[in-house]
Amino acid sequence: MLLPRPHSLTPLDGTFLLGPDTVLSAGPGTVDTAEWLRSVLRPSTGLPLPPRAPAGDEPAITLALDPALAAEAYRLDVRTEGVTLVGGAASGVFYACQALLQLLPPAVHRRARVDAVTSLPVPAVSVRDAPRFGWRGLMLDVARHFMPKHDLLRLVDLLALHRLNTLHLHLTDDQGWRLEIRRHPRLTEVGAWRAESQRGAAVDAPGDGRPHGGFYTQDDIREIVAYAAERHITVVPEIDVPGHSQAAIAAYPELGVTGAPTATSTRWGVNPRVLNTEDSTVAFYRDVLDEVMELFPGPYIGLGGDECPTTQWREDPRTQELMRQRGLADETALRTWFTGRLAAHVTGAGRRVFGWDEILEGPVPEGTVVASWRGLTGARTAARRGLDVVSCPDDQVYLDYRQSEHPDEPIPFAVPLTLADTYRFDPVPDGLTPVEAARVLGGQANVWTEHMDSPRTVDYYVFPRLCAIAEALWSGAERDFADFRRRLAEHLPRLDALGVEYRRDTGPLPWQTRPGIAGRPADRQEWAALIDSLVAPIRD
Amino acid sequence: MLLPRPHSLTPLDGTFLLGPDTVLSAGPGTVDTAEWLRSVLRPSTGLPLPPRAPAGDEPAITLALDPALAAEAYRLDVRTEGVTLVGGAASGVFYACQALLQLLPPAVHRRARVDAVTSLPVPAVSVRDAPRFGWRGLMLDVARHFMPKHDLLRLVDLLALHRLNTLHLHLTDDQGWRLEIRRHPRLTEVGAWRAESQRGAAVDAPGDGRPHGGFYTQDDIREIVAYAAERHITVVPEIDVPGHSQAAIAAYPELGVTGAPTATSTRWGVNPRVLNTEDSTVAFYRDVLDEVMELFPGPYIGLGGDECPTTQWREDPRTQELMRQRGLADETALRTWFTGRLAAHVTGAGRRVFGWDEILEGPVPEGTVVASWRGLTGARTAARRGLDVVSCPDDQVYLDYRQSEHPDEPIPFAVPLTLADTYRFDPVPDGLTPVEAARVLGGQANVWTEHMDSPRTVDYYVFPRLCAIAEALWSGAERDFADFRRRLAEHLPRLDALGVEYRRDTGPLPWQTRPGIAGRPADRQEWAALIDSLVAPIRD
Repeated sequence: MLLPRPHSLTPLDGTFLLGPDTVLSAGPGTVDTAEWLRSVLRPSTGLPLPPRAPAGDEPAITLALDPALAAEAYRLDVRTEGVTLVGGAASGVFYACQALLQLLPPAVHRRARVDAVTSLPVPAVSVRDAPRFGWRGLMLDVARHFMPKHDLLRLVDLLALHRLNTLHLHLTDDQGWRLEIRRHPRLTEVGAWRAESQRGAAVDAPGDGRPHGGFYTQDDIREIVAYAAERHITVVPEIDVPGHSQAAIAAYPELGVTGAPTATSTRWGVNPRVLNTEDSTVAFYRDVLDEVMELFPGPYIGLGGDECPTTQWREDPRTQELMRQRGLADETALRTWFTGRLAAHVTGAGRRVFGWDEILEGPVPEGTVVASWRGLTGARTAARRGLDVVSCPDDQVYLDYRQSEHPDEPIPFAVPLTLADTYRFDPVPDGLTPVEAARVLGGQANVWTEHMDSPRTVDYYVFPRLCAIAEALWSGAERDFADFRRRLAEHLPRLDALGVEYRRDTGPLPWQTRPGIAGRPADRQEWAALIDSLVAPIRD
Repeated sequence: MLLPRPHSLTPLDGTFLLGPDTVLSAGPGTVDTAEWLRSVLRPSTGLPLPPRAPAGDEPAITLALDPALAAEAYRLDVRTEGVTLVGGAASGVFYACQALLQLLPPAVHRRARVDAVTSLPVPAVSVRDAPRFGWRGLMLDVARHFMPKHDLLRLVDLLALHRLNTLHLHLTDDQGWRLEIRRHPRLTEVGAWRAESQRGAAVDAPGDGRPHGGFYTQDDIREIVAYAAERHITVVPEIDVPGHSQAAIAAYPELGVTGAPTATSTRWGVNPRVLNTEDSTVAFYRDVLDEVMELFPGPYIGLGGDECPTTQWREDPRTQELMRQRGLADETALRTWFTGRLAAHVTGAGRRVFGWDEILEGPVPEGTVVASWRGLTGARTAARRGLDVVSCPDDQVYLDYRQSEHPDEPIPFAVPLTLADTYRFDPVPDGLTPVEAARVLGGQANVWTEHMDSPRTVDYYVFPRLCAIAEALWSGAERDFADFRRRLAEHLPRLDALGVEYRRDTGPLPWQTRPGIAGRPADRQEWAALIDSLVAPIRD
């Protein structure tokens, strides 16, 4: 009945009646979690759930910490007399609460009462649980399509429901800059919108003629970060450099190689335009990172580093001159130099660099976390070099990839990545020693939004595949897809209650299709060969 | 500082410090309101705000009822020692809470803390307030474009913020049927989506090739209704008959005049296709209304009745035969007969019929409420006939009308309806006796969504014009636009905190434009003449 599957669940005799007399009793360190539980249960059940110590033998839901447990581990015990939720830290208690909610009807996930029930039976049960990995994440690309703040808060709740603890925000790209930077306001004045968007994935796809834009104010970010923190989710910001930067160059042409005016990109795909590597550009991005680090208190600061073409640098005399001055042998060394300067700024501020696996082509500062996206080659290489790893192999967790071979799959892109495929996800590559394997912090689903132009579309691509990935990250390495599907069948009504427009097992609903919009489907073998060729430089 | 403008506001000396010691004390009948206030303030301030009677001289926010006040009237008294919020009923206390929130920084409207402030000063003040009208509403057309449930709940919160108390949902139309009906499942299986949508307002506008759809399950509706009720908002459902019914006919061709298969409409504008008037069709809609009345407990059930062309009936021998059998002189009489049968079903169930002003062309049951949309002619006629009236004159409160003469206004439709225009809205037509004028229950903004294909776009069209309409409905008949604008300038940061993408005073943001999409702007005089000609049959 629980999803993700817990370490152990023992059904017991009896039932606890969650009713008008039930008291919510929060031990030291669990008051905020109790308030959160109350904020979910009170509107949906109408029960008062007073937050106080029980008087005598009042039925109670009791929250407590047990320092003997790992922080995110929990025990959930439902007995006829009461419910106890114990975690190693507040996060563990929070996950115990999420488990408790899954013992209740799906309607508890609604925001008001849909029936007149006055008490809810909770089956007696004993759950012992702890996550397999400490990094259980989702990356959302808000650059290709902006997601309004309130929709993003909703997504945070959906991550928490699946006991994910990391939200990586891809805040900047060629097609949009989504974060207010006080010192450089044109980044959003100019870079937060584009004139239109490419429709579909074909190379010759037409534009849709419709402007798209939006950005988060600094207060919006503070709210998102704090809201996520209350749900034990760390937000990891990413400012992608030195490629994927056309929106910034549109705002400040002096950041580009040619200095020529340009516009925020309206086309998908890897873009030849890159940042120049002048000291002034490094200084500009240090300003940006200072504001980023002020807004995002978490340990990790993403610098991107992926997909940086070198043609512009190679053809630019000034860049070649800079390379000579700096004693750099080639453009790869220049890219490493540039990200290295910013990485030093991040580490100098006591934070850790988070970057795509391309950064393995050069030296990286100690403490860097490598996001292995082109399969698990980067994970293997990084782990062997003693770097921490987050696995997000494209062919296992890229949720923009088509969900099936179904002919109605909207804008079919890349290789099929079915629910069963995502369920098989294992972040740990083969062939590592135990010490190396311990470098794998976990994994995350990546949601690139070129073809997701609304939160409704994001729902379609993300669910239920994220449920499978969440289980792959939380539960043990063994897999039982039939069992997962049984529990998913009980889980989908929760998503229904939350209004999540997930993909049906039978394919897209009629209004989830995109007839006539060309995708770019790929064959598995060809795709694997392509990825294989790309990672040659980082294969140890 | 308050918006809508209160009846009286007297600034006093001193300040109440809302801080960690503040207690929330709820008198009889105000517990749920206190919990709602706490659910807003606790996440945004981090203050514990324990809900309990103050011990001794603890600083408290005290909520209470005073039966001497009208239900929605309230007193808000902020003193150094404490805050008291008194209402005639829970709704009045709720509006006092909304007023109190407007004395606090805009950040209290966020869902998590954005600063580390530990106490908030509230200026001492004495407010006496009551609404001018009892029907302060917004109609949302969820048929032309579906609004997902969570977005609709957000809109409910935005209505409550403006002390509106009625949400009229236009649930069915040619382009979509949005409500699950258990007895007739094809209404949503077939009628809840269309193959594409007309892009823009021109008669020859192209289709966009993109399917659109969605519907509310019955539990979704229960949730929406209950959520709204907790915010003192009544949801008025509308099932539009006998015109605007192509989605239903697509689902069940036997409801149509020709019986020919058709599809949910992909074009805007008045549609020649109407329901037939067979007894079986009446019975079908009685089934529908039975489920509607089960889901919507409010007093009003909308039957539409607008824009019903008669060509199909006139050309159909079977319909002509039915007219003869029923002794009906013409197609107008047939329409009245049909809506009359359903109206009798509604009144027989103890509810009141709510219909567009076209229903004045025939007899209507006692208790009917007339929505006067083609100017105020329907309001005048209905009031004189002793019927209750809700005023929603198109040229004052139709929020799909263009907001200015600005060349970048997206898909410019009909006549300009600026913020100043909406602020002048008065629901009471000239020339009524006081008894007749008392028939005007109030008014509502109407949001037709042909050109609003996402909640973001709805934000743009609705705000800040709805702020002006809310004041026109709440505050006294006198108007002071300069004063309103001053208070609006303090109000917009609240909308910013809530992530509302309102129209800027200077025009649309670049990404709020729709370049190249033709609208159908009209000239004021021609428009007035058109409306004038349409209402000839209901002018007494």
